[in-house]
Amino acid sequence: MELDLSADAAALTACLVDTPSVSGGEEELADAIERALRALPHLAVHRDGNAIVARTGLGRAQRVILAGHIDTVPVAGNLPSHAERDRLYGCGTTDMKSGVAVQLRLAATVRQPVRDVTYVFYDCEEAEAARNGLLRLSGNCPELLAGDVAVLMEPTGGVVEGGCQGTLRAEITVPGKRAHSARSWMGRNAIHEAAGVLDVLRRYEPRQPEVDGLAYREGLNAVGIAGGVAGNVIPDECVVTVNYRFAPDRDPGEAERHVRETFGGWQVRVTDVAPPARPGLGHPAVASLLAAVGGTPRAKLGWTDVARFASLGIPAVNYGPGIPEIAHTAGEYVETGAIAACEARMRAWLIGDRTP
Amino acid sequence: MELDLSADAAALTACLVDTPSVSGGEEELADAIERALRALPHLAVHRDGNAIVARTGLGRAQRVILAGHIDTVPVAGNLPSHAERDRLYGCGTTDMKSGVAVQLRLAATVRQPVRDVTYVFYDCEEAEAARNGLLRLSGNCPELLAGDVAVLMEPTGGVVEGGCQGTLRAEITVPGKRAHSARSWMGRNAIHEAAGVLDVLRRYEPRQPEVDGLAYREGLNAVGIAGGVAGNVIPDECVVTVNYRFAPDRDPGEAERHVRETFGGWQVRVTDVAPPARPGLGHPAVASLLAAVGGTPRAKLGWTDVARFASLGIPAVNYGPGIPEIAHTAGEYVETGAIAACEARMRAWLIGDRTP
Repeated sequence: MELDLSADAAALTACLVDTPSVSGGEEELADAIERALRALPHLAVHRDGNAIVARTGLGRAQRVILAGHIDTVPVAGNLPSHAERDRLYGCGTTDMKSGVAVQLRLAATVRQPVRDVTYVFYDCEEAEAARNGLLRLSGNCPELLAGDVAVLMEPTGGVVEGGCQGTLRAEITVPGKRAHSARSWMGRNAIHEAAGVLDVLRRYEPRQPEVDGLAYREGLNAVGIAGGVAGNVIPDECVVTVNYRFAPDRDPGEAERHVRETFGGWQVRVTDVAPPARPGLGHPAVASLLAAVGGTPRAKLGWTDVARFASLGIPAVNYGPGIPEIAHTAGEYVETGAIAACEARMRAWLIGDRTP
Repeated sequence: MELDLSADAAALTACLVDTPSVSGGEEELADAIERALRALPHLAVHRDGNAIVARTGLGRAQRVILAGHIDTVPVAGNLPSHAERDRLYGCGTTDMKSGVAVQLRLAATVRQPVRDVTYVFYDCEEAEAARNGLLRLSGNCPELLAGDVAVLMEPTGGVVEGGCQGTLRAEITVPGKRAHSARSWMGRNAIHEAAGVLDVLRRYEPRQPEVDGLAYREGLNAVGIAGGVAGNVIPDECVVTVNYRFAPDRDPGEAERHVRETFGGWQVRVTDVAPPARPGLGHPAVASLLAAVGGTPRAKLGWTDVARFASLGIPAVNYGPGIPEIAHTAGEYVETGAIAACEARMRAWLIGDRTP
């Protein structure tokens, strides 16, 4: 499969979508992207596993990073892609091969950007965090990720979304005492006592702080519950798994303390935490992106890889043509007009023209 | 392995225990029991799978049934048996090979009982109900189970326990609406709402009815809870499995209505129900057993196979030398003196001597 970077961004999106690349199976698509980029003499191309980094080297005072993942969630009977009026349907259309198509179009056609550009295409974003290609790149070749500001081209509906909330998962364990269920008073029912944990969750009032001018909205929710030994046994343990989504004015340590305080009476085990990212809208390069894109920026509530750039000290925002609400659904699609609009606005930003 | 029915009941128990017979693996022990019984000319012996039925045929006006299962729960590093002072330790000592030893001793030695006797040895009591050997016998050869009263020689600590409570399991399903956990207000958290079910359980006041003079004690408890889709998803379903133990003044239909009323706001699916058995202490043969055994009878709270006899219209009680509290534990044992006492009292009852 060869990618034609002279095709329009919607046609290119269809071509990317029709090369399946479920997490762990990105090799064919990564090969095609690498070949297409190596054919462009103004870019220096590096490959690390199934991640590709292509960079201009114009000696500009600043460097911006455009990043996107090339993998998708599992195909759900929604391949090959098909167009219906102004929409392109198929696995990955919205999350996020339309964003990747915009990256590739810009890489091929913007030869004299006002800031140097690093294009990052990476693997395994839809898999568990330890396999994430951007994480691997930041360990193997951090110099390739150096820059002043990053734009992650995840689906945002064409609006700039600043930063992201952090996410912490913890297991709240409620103990009991086992007994035969015909003599329940001999034991202590851990499932019944877990109602106390659920009561805390039901009463919980999440914060809605403003950070750098954007309104965030936290949440603390049970995402799992498990208890029970056998159909005739009073259970001696019930575990409630909670997920705390926290605004970027808290760091992971503060988030953990908050969860431990909230469930003070029980055993709390933090199983994983991913840091938030501040919106970084005050950075001059981000301000110029906002001017080029237009519209009112909003807070990103879900966690995204912008947090990895934030942890490298690089301000990062989310901006892409896909529609976040339908990501990961069998019916996902992208408006073809939105792909072209995103490409035009990004081009205007990169070449310094404020009137696209 | 040959069984010596002239040995004392404790030695015979050790011999039975040292022939492992975990549910489904009873054949060797069933063979030995069949051989030993066929050597007794006063008994007519029938075999059905790994169940053995041996009957006197003296033409007495009444017939009593002595029943016991020959299988055990899985061995837990507690074989072979060993004696320590007055105790015999090992898998099945208490539940219920000591009771089976008493049955075998009585079968061999009581040749002129005042009531005809049917000895039932059956398989797979510790397995799922559908494999139960007594259930199979009642279908294949119900005429072999005919009788006026039955004694199930399960562990009761040497006290007559009348009837048994019924048991009903049901799944209470609490619905919700799925959403990304970073936007929890778009969904409805089924786990949080399951607190309502747990509140009902915590507030529930179980009945303690008296039936035929015995005090029963009901219970309604969660024995399982499960909910959760993924670590970043507001769950759309939470299922609480409850177990209702009900006294023998209610039948399964009434028990089901009670559970449905108790959880009126939710979807209730009854997954299994086993009927209770009334104590039947008013029957003359049971009254004479009580006189022979002595002590104060009590209600059986856990479900036992007495309910199968009850469903055949035969009053049935539990009485055996084992200790119910340590059944199914790795440290199970039986007091050797209790085996001899049980044998002596049962013999007194069978031969009509009220002063053992």
